[in-house]
Amino acid sequence: MYQQDPAAAAWLGAIGVVDATELPGLDDLHEPEGAIEEAQRLAAECFQADRTFFLVGGSTVGNLAAIGGSAARDEIIIMQRNVHKSAIHAAMLSGSSVVFVAPEYEEKAGLYGGVRAETIAEALQTYPQAKAVFVTSPNYYGMAVRELERIAAHAHDAGVPLIVDEAHGAHFGFHSRFPRSALQLGADAVIQSTHKMLPAMTMGAMLHLQGDRINIERVQRLLRMLQSSSPSYPIMASLDWARWKLHTGQSALFDDSLTVIDQFVKDLESNECYGVRILDDPMKLLLYDRTKKLTGYVLQAELTKQGIYTEMADERYVVLACSCATDKQDLEHLGSALREIHQGHPSEKKENGDIFSNNKYILPPSISPPISLDYFARRSETKRTITVNVEQSAGMVSAEMVIPYPPGIPLLFPGETITQEAADQLARLRDAGASVQGIKDRAVRTIEVVQSP
Amino acid sequence: MYQQDPAAAAWLGAIGVVDATELPGLDDLHEPEGAIEEAQRLAAECFQADRTFFLVGGSTVGNLAAIGGSAARDEIIIMQRNVHKSAIHAAMLSGSSVVFVAPEYEEKAGLYGGVRAETIAEALQTYPQAKAVFVTSPNYYGMAVRELERIAAHAHDAGVPLIVDEAHGAHFGFHSRFPRSALQLGADAVIQSTHKMLPAMTMGAMLHLQGDRINIERVQRLLRMLQSSSPSYPIMASLDWARWKLHTGQSALFDDSLTVIDQFVKDLESNECYGVRILDDPMKLLLYDRTKKLTGYVLQAELTKQGIYTEMADERYVVLACSCATDKQDLEHLGSALREIHQGHPSEKKENGDIFSNNKYILPPSISPPISLDYFARRSETKRTITVNVEQSAGMVSAEMVIPYPPGIPLLFPGETITQEAADQLARLRDAGASVQGIKDRAVRTIEVVQSP
Repeated sequence: MYQQDPAAAAWLGAIGVVDATELPGLDDLHEPEGAIEEAQRLAAECFQADRTFFLVGGSTVGNLAAIGGSAARDEIIIMQRNVHKSAIHAAMLSGSSVVFVAPEYEEKAGLYGGVRAETIAEALQTYPQAKAVFVTSPNYYGMAVRELERIAAHAHDAGVPLIVDEAHGAHFGFHSRFPRSALQLGADAVIQSTHKMLPAMTMGAMLHLQGDRINIERVQRLLRMLQSSSPSYPIMASLDWARWKLHTGQSALFDDSLTVIDQFVKDLESNECYGVRILDDPMKLLLYDRTKKLTGYVLQAELTKQGIYTEMADERYVVLACSCATDKQDLEHLGSALREIHQGHPSEKKENGDIFSNNKYILPPSISPPISLDYFARRSETKRTITVNVEQSAGMVSAEMVIPYPPGIPLLFPGETITQEAADQLARLRDAGASVQGIKDRAVRTIEVVQSP
Repeated sequence: MYQQDPAAAAWLGAIGVVDATELPGLDDLHEPEGAIEEAQRLAAECFQADRTFFLVGGSTVGNLAAIGGSAARDEIIIMQRNVHKSAIHAAMLSGSSVVFVAPEYEEKAGLYGGVRAETIAEALQTYPQAKAVFVTSPNYYGMAVRELERIAAHAHDAGVPLIVDEAHGAHFGFHSRFPRSALQLGADAVIQSTHKMLPAMTMGAMLHLQGDRINIERVQRLLRMLQSSSPSYPIMASLDWARWKLHTGQSALFDDSLTVIDQFVKDLESNECYGVRILDDPMKLLLYDRTKKLTGYVLQAELTKQGIYTEMADERYVVLACSCATDKQDLEHLGSALREIHQGHPSEKKENGDIFSNNKYILPPSISPPISLDYFARRSETKRTITVNVEQSAGMVSAEMVIPYPPGIPLLFPGETITQEAADQLARLRDAGASVQGIKDRAVRTIEVVQSP
């Protein structure tokens, strides 16, 4: 296979070139005192952190270390419900107890956004023993937590750190049209997927810390435990490269892209079929069918046929992530693809009005009781499970983590009671052809639940 | 910096090329059913496993998942004492209790090797509730555990899986001159750093499973929790490439390298100053000063000056890892570098006889009592620590994990009583300029110990 395919051979040859890292003075990610220490220091300066750690295991490992380093077993962490699975995995690994707080539903966008400061304050009052607050901002759709500064203030009043999963916002704070960054708004620990919105290699991410509320030593120790003892130099170098691009380019780095995005949005106003919505992050375009005939999944499939690879789709939207490299040609291609889809495939459209209620399926209590997801508890203490049809699962307790991916936010986690809405949503996602992780039955017909005693 | 340096710019450009992965049909490492599933299946066939998982977080994540998936909190795992830090980290994260078994000291090589089957059998009899056995084979020096097949049989008699850290032995079993692989010898779970001895990118590794003693579901769940939700495609592709090279090349892949290695070994016989030792793995060359004038550290530094980058050094040896790409020119360069060092730097040699006792510092009981390293225990339950001079630390209980790196095998772990030998060895390593990870005092003058009540 590799021999017959010159493109594959060339690509693999390039891998060899970039991975040629056996040079002196390479430093050690786990005990940096040379080039890596300097690169991390420059990144801390650039992002206005006191301390920055380069991550070679993605934002995943940053969430695991920041959460695991802040709450020990049975200690409470207050967490926004609609977080990336890695935040819940952190609680599973550390055995901390999670108080989930519900996000606000934003009617206009038809999406769950961030949590309100008031809800966090109430959770902190109810659970004064809590060790940390964890929120996600922005989400996959580019929606920022509007009251982040107030949330930070509430956490600090309670003497605990605010940890922010800013995986999708590494560019925040670097242009007047972007929201301010979580660090600027007072967060104590911030995790960024540098590779998502800045030019770094996949799995390249950063963990920024500021202030003295976060236990740096415990966080660092976890990073040493969780990350490879042979970290990838191409990934680390690409993080330094992304920092350098940002440092030298500053806000001008994004000006050209924003200009062409503005033009695209303006042009699409006259498109009777497809609309585009921008929430807080102007680099994230949410395309949707104004006529409610095509779901996001179908629209995504149509765009793929036109050679346009999108970030994600849900029942309503197709999300496109622009970058500082997005140019006029990219968005003209997108515009003409949308016209093509409109004209060329009317037969594939279907009426299915009620699926556009989109995403309104996570309905936890506003503030949940503490939930222990302790993964390493002895098996004798774990519950027996049975398999039931998804349609019959409402009211039962899930034994599985069920994760529509992307965006990777668990619809259900082990130990959570399955609401009728969640069961319905899971069935709908399955029928719409969404990719669902974590569930044993790959066809998503059945789900494992905890057997009643 | 990047703008002025065309080499850096070209290298970073190549990174961009290999990381261009946004193509359809890319599959999902965490729920593979396309290209990744096929690549993993082909790897399982090639390495004779029932099931193979590609790892993008190195052997580190393989050890964490295999150990964490086999023993829950307070459950016992029987572990060779001289393991890679990631094995001990696994016990720290999962909270399992470790029964350490001492390795055998091999007088001729002056190195600790593997454990004996008899010792494992005795540990299993003493702790019949143990959930798994974990050993490392081969070690950094290319020494294989000689009685691995018998160890597997003892584990299986006791109904528990044998997990083998074969990080340095991905090539084992593929040539008549290599030792048989751990899978061939009956291991249930085997972790290989494909990037070390085969042509894969750094952090590219594999976890192979066979039989039904290992809890595949728990291992896989941990892999999903610990590895990035945006895994690196270049790393995954390089694993498939390495498998393909092995599959198409088979033992002939190594013939040329072995021929030039044999010639190098023969040539060095006449060198009155430097000798080379090969233990079980003919791809690992252990260079040493026959006259006992240069430590491995000094010899390594001299080789670096000659442009030869070695795998690791200790007090006695410099370890060189050859690969299937090692050619005549490489080893001629090494030979002439050794002649150069012999002739050119007589003034830098120093007499220091007793440091060549090398490595004989881990002196645990043959079988330790179960030790809990539980990292996520509440802080209120953790002990208070004080800082003492390394020279005064014997008899105290270490609060730090102290890891000479490479090879990354902890000299001390938290909770371990510091023997006089360990304290002496730590001081010697410091004075010899060895790199030591994990210890807070980077100058290695002091160490944190548990305060007596």
